[in-house]
Amino acid sequence: MADALNVGLVGLGTIGTGVVRIFQEHGDDIERRLGFPLRLAHVADIDLETDRGVSLDGYRLSRDYKPLVQDPELDLVVELVGGTTVAADVAIAALVAGKGVVTANKALLAHRGDELYALAREHGTDVAFEAAVGGTIPVLRALREGLASDRIESVHGIVNGTCNYVLTQMEEQGEPYAACLKRAQELGYAEADPTFDVDGTDSAHKLVILVGLALGVRCRLGDFPVEGIERVSPTDIEVAGRLGLRVKLLASARRTAAGIVASVRPTLVPRSGVLAGVGGAMNAVEVHGAMSGPTLYYGAGAGSLPTAVAVVSDLMELARSRRLGAVGRVPPLGSVELADTGLADAAADEGEHFVRVEAAGSGDPAAALVAGLAQRGVALASLERTPEAIVATTRPARRGEIDAALAAMRDPGRAPQVMRIEREP
Amino acid sequence: MADALNVGLVGLGTIGTGVVRIFQEHGDDIERRLGFPLRLAHVADIDLETDRGVSLDGYRLSRDYKPLVQDPELDLVVELVGGTTVAADVAIAALVAGKGVVTANKALLAHRGDELYALAREHGTDVAFEAAVGGTIPVLRALREGLASDRIESVHGIVNGTCNYVLTQMEEQGEPYAACLKRAQELGYAEADPTFDVDGTDSAHKLVILVGLALGVRCRLGDFPVEGIERVSPTDIEVAGRLGLRVKLLASARRTAAGIVASVRPTLVPRSGVLAGVGGAMNAVEVHGAMSGPTLYYGAGAGSLPTAVAVVSDLMELARSRRLGAVGRVPPLGSVELADTGLADAAADEGEHFVRVEAAGSGDPAAALVAGLAQRGVALASLERTPEAIVATTRPARRGEIDAALAAMRDPGRAPQVMRIEREP
Repeated sequence: MADALNVGLVGLGTIGTGVVRIFQEHGDDIERRLGFPLRLAHVADIDLETDRGVSLDGYRLSRDYKPLVQDPELDLVVELVGGTTVAADVAIAALVAGKGVVTANKALLAHRGDELYALAREHGTDVAFEAAVGGTIPVLRALREGLASDRIESVHGIVNGTCNYVLTQMEEQGEPYAACLKRAQELGYAEADPTFDVDGTDSAHKLVILVGLALGVRCRLGDFPVEGIERVSPTDIEVAGRLGLRVKLLASARRTAAGIVASVRPTLVPRSGVLAGVGGAMNAVEVHGAMSGPTLYYGAGAGSLPTAVAVVSDLMELARSRRLGAVGRVPPLGSVELADTGLADAAADEGEHFVRVEAAGSGDPAAALVAGLAQRGVALASLERTPEAIVATTRPARRGEIDAALAAMRDPGRAPQVMRIEREP
Repeated sequence: MADALNVGLVGLGTIGTGVVRIFQEHGDDIERRLGFPLRLAHVADIDLETDRGVSLDGYRLSRDYKPLVQDPELDLVVELVGGTTVAADVAIAALVAGKGVVTANKALLAHRGDELYALAREHGTDVAFEAAVGGTIPVLRALREGLASDRIESVHGIVNGTCNYVLTQMEEQGEPYAACLKRAQELGYAEADPTFDVDGTDSAHKLVILVGLALGVRCRLGDFPVEGIERVSPTDIEVAGRLGLRVKLLASARRTAAGIVASVRPTLVPRSGVLAGVGGAMNAVEVHGAMSGPTLYYGAGAGSLPTAVAVVSDLMELARSRRLGAVGRVPPLGSVELADTGLADAAADEGEHFVRVEAAGSGDPAAALVAGLAQRGVALASLERTPEAIVATTRPARRGEIDAALAAMRDPGRAPQVMRIEREP
């Protein structure tokens, strides 16, 4: 039997516990696939007492990450600490020690990915992060290798299960945002503090990774607009439904004549399309290639075991490369060179839009909306009045013009809503 | 600049022409990803005269595959000849010469895959075939690496675009099989001789590959039942619709208590599920993992450019491995060892079923059907009479009992139909 490769795990939270379970329950299958054993050898967590339903017998145990990343017997280290401070320390120390690193930490990658990728190259090792986008779905692999010969034109992802669950509930139950979020928290689909999920930050972290992998361009948080689901109203969902559309929080990036445009925003997609069919807490990423056309990748975007499958599968890939001396086989973002062109101005991007202003307030909001949009050269496609709101849809127009029109209206109603209609994502 | 790796292409048909186009249009992108050039250097086809819309200038050209597979400058060979005779000769000669081989030929793999995989190992080279199942969709990669740490419980694929197009048309246009097949031929979604598509053979070739990759078991054509779409009637589609179900030709394999059960058969899936939403000529594979849960992979299952994307992406993977001396990194079917347990008897597999017999003929076919099924211990869930047919659905029952009941009925009507209802594929 060939020698084992050894894994260290830092962080025994939800995903970390899943990783332990997979090693315990699928260890033989993993060895059958690899042709050599991959062993979990060392586990580090501040809290080694809480019963997480898995036995820690037989592992070296540490309360601090330092003895683990310095353990000379380890070949690979899994960082599942979360956050961007200690997590960065763990990843950096492991890479500097020449160990392969697997992480599910999208925030860490969005903020400090470039640094980690450079360290991995410098120290002749690998960093892998399939679990960071779309949980169990091997969509990063699809972009990095499966579609590597194509030129990707666009990527549209439902990559936050909390938001998708809340939006699905709002439509199915006809209830407002706050009530659906509360139910999501009760059922464990949303954290006690769901801010980074519902405000789009988590999706933005993932979009930074997708833009690099799919479009070969380096981008950063702050380079593109980010909007969450907090202002999506029952009226939006109801009127969208009558128009054959459904609200989804999309992390999107597209090549346009002006350059690559990226955003995280509530977006309207056709009910008959595949993205509209992604309900509840599930995730999906639709990719449009110049030659491959549309492909879609669907599955559980979160959860202990689904996410752990992505982590341990990454460990297997790194183990194979290490065993063959083929470290660095595929660069983390799929290209030896990334472009530094930056992103185009999302406000200049053209598209059909859905515009809603509240009906309350002084004057005739419908007339004001029509006049305001006309003044910015935005042509209407439809106009509808509900008891609460005026809803217009536009012909293809720049988002910036629509935003300017709403800003110039004396009384645009509280919280006007603008959503792109993405007919062929 | 690092030295180029050189590719030879045998077969300038639809996919081969797509491969040439990708090299010509995406060559720079491919080099940017790889860090070294991957060049198409040599093309072989009996017919080098027909204008296929791509220039062959600058390539070495041969009318026979032999000079190509012996070309010492080539590192990788693409086999796109089709069939299982010359194609096998090409693949074998290339592997024996130590070249990496990429093919889209599912028939070749289903019939002689084991021989090719063994030759690749023996000669220290690789064979790759992402394009053989699901065209452009990188689902084999997902099974081989992305979900490698999981234990796959089932795989259900819509892997023949011709059949899916015909079934979609039958439902949308309300027309019979023959008319829809004729339209598919006119529009290029079906071959002039569509036999191997509509009778399930093509899906069966793909299922052999999926069973190996997803379930780690070696199987052969003839090990599982194969049925095409020729006997699906408008009544089947209409009644299924009223039951909230849709007919799809599924290539399926599942772990059951008795072992792995595989089949290619028209199957009923819930209209609300993701597989039901796969329309027209598109393909999709749904995978159910013990820990990852359901994941789905969707995209174009055929076509020149989409299929060529899978072929050239495979070439890139093999080129990377060759460059690093990491040939054989992942075994062709994802495991160093495959099980030789064989498949369980599909007739013994339990499930809800849809049973249709024609209403014409002597006696009372409804009474005969009910009595016949009862005699074999099959409990009914519903019974419906249409002008043309009697349709029953059953409680979970063995397929073998249902088939036996129909065979024993004196007048089961012409062409009785039995389809499994797969509620949670």
